[in-house]
Amino acid sequence: MFEAGFIAVDWGTTNRRGYRVGPDGRHDAEYEDERGVLSVDPGDFPAAAAELRSRLGDLPMLLAGMVGSNRGWVEAPYVPCPGSYDALAAGVIWAEPGRSAIVPGLSFLNDDRADVMRGEEVQLLGAVTSGVLPADGLACHPGTHNKWVSLTAGAIRSFRTVMTGELFNLLKSKGILADWLQRPVVVSDAFRAGVRQGLKGQAMGADLFAVRARVLLGQAKEEDAASFTSGLLIGSDVCAGLAEASTGPVTVIGRPELTTLYAAAMEEAGRETHEVDGEDAFLAGIVEIARRVK
Amino acid sequence: MFEAGFIAVDWGTTNRRGYRVGPDGRHDAEYEDERGVLSVDPGDFPAAAAELRSRLGDLPMLLAGMVGSNRGWVEAPYVPCPGSYDALAAGVIWAEPGRSAIVPGLSFLNDDRADVMRGEEVQLLGAVTSGVLPADGLACHPGTHNKWVSLTAGAIRSFRTVMTGELFNLLKSKGILADWLQRPVVVSDAFRAGVRQGLKGQAMGADLFAVRARVLLGQAKEEDAASFTSGLLIGSDVCAGLAEASTGPVTVIGRPELTTLYAAAMEEAGRETHEVDGEDAFLAGIVEIARRVK
Repeated sequence: MFEAGFIAVDWGTTNRRGYRVGPDGRHDAEYEDERGVLSVDPGDFPAAAAELRSRLGDLPMLLAGMVGSNRGWVEAPYVPCPGSYDALAAGVIWAEPGRSAIVPGLSFLNDDRADVMRGEEVQLLGAVTSGVLPADGLACHPGTHNKWVSLTAGAIRSFRTVMTGELFNLLKSKGILADWLQRPVVVSDAFRAGVRQGLKGQAMGADLFAVRARVLLGQAKEEDAASFTSGLLIGSDVCAGLAEASTGPVTVIGRPELTTLYAAAMEEAGRETHEVDGEDAFLAGIVEIARRVK
Repeated sequence: MFEAGFIAVDWGTTNRRGYRVGPDGRHDAEYEDERGVLSVDPGDFPAAAAELRSRLGDLPMLLAGMVGSNRGWVEAPYVPCPGSYDALAAGVIWAEPGRSAIVPGLSFLNDDRADVMRGEEVQLLGAVTSGVLPADGLACHPGTHNKWVSLTAGAIRSFRTVMTGELFNLLKSKGILADWLQRPVVVSDAFRAGVRQGLKGQAMGADLFAVRARVLLGQAKEEDAASFTSGLLIGSDVCAGLAEASTGPVTVIGRPELTTLYAAAMEEAGRETHEVDGEDAFLAGIVEIARRVK
């Protein structure tokens, strides 16, 4: 279906990015805008997809991300772990028969846990294909909902989501810390101190209130509160995530401004990391899925 | 100063409650409105206090709560623990000399922790005076910022704040769980299941995302999400709080709709509790402070 070239689309909640991929699997054009899933009315997806074709060419399209959620174009039901290229390709849903296919998300369920992802799976498998993530490794994919992902023989065996980015954004939107969290987060001494506190795995609600109390009592500076709080949340996240695999390096995949923070936090925890740009990984992954779609 | 009777005021962030107290220490009138500290402009506190006198009588006034914060009428600096009636009485600040005094808040600081409270200290000491809180007991004071308080010989030795109420309100205001959290929280099987999960003391950001995943994967009902999530946050809070004193009953002081939830959570943790109405405790405490103010 996609052998003669196609448009690959990473269509998320708040923006989307399309790439024109040639028969050789390389891309020669791309287009990005803010028409994320939440900004498209349910009936307007065909027109929104046509706009991508007007930018990148009249080609078949393979889409991944929240475009396949119940708030997207057509719902592509979650494929249960283990998640491989073959399983994802077998689960694609055609939004426009023979024209536009949507990659499903992944689910993980056992007695203790329930989890879902949609979009990250393409980047994760792509990173294995690119040789930057070991086929039996542990990966971390920061974002609004950070994912810790364990792979076995190149397939996604299990994963765990921590909503660190969302919690930070909520704390920044209102409440007792909001004013202080408007400053930029940097990998500073305050960030690292927050990470060390978060790594203790104590009650987050107590650590967060202490951010305010320390400033009121002259034990910390207001201008350090944003970096400290980010470090605290990421440290708690890393504490949970590193328990998924007790040794070995961790590949951190995603937007560079976030992978930097997570890599610094894992360094504080004594763990080796490798940072990978999520965009390159997405392209490597979507090409492999396209090859397998019947 | 207050021997011939006075007006006791519990003046918080969003509302205030005044009581006319006679020479015998009993109250015979009260008045409540929504003129919390955040709704009074900085220069308007004298007029707002005069309004209370117009309702309750032209008497001296003893005020506690956020009215003594840097956003209140006059800042009453925190008194360091241990917090006793004598220490609080010695630390009152006169907003209107000889007419209106403000009870200070308490601070706690050691190598590991920094914490502050403002308003709860009156209720806590009052509960000891009323005989409903042991002089060497552990108390829990739920609210936007829940306090776990250890007492020794009737004084507040140390305390720890967990911002459980604020986190729940933030999650309810927006984000992936907000729609589901609008329903009422009840002590149901779902609440108790949330408590048991929270008591494990795992990463809260992971447990919160799982609330959503469980519903998406058909493992839980959307209508149970509010009670489960509240149970999760309170269970995590209780996990941290019970570590403050490993045995003995816990006195839970505050608004009945909140003390019920915390008592149910501690029952799940196998801990005996006694619920105490915060209003009665406030009156018992403020009378004792008034007796000691020079």
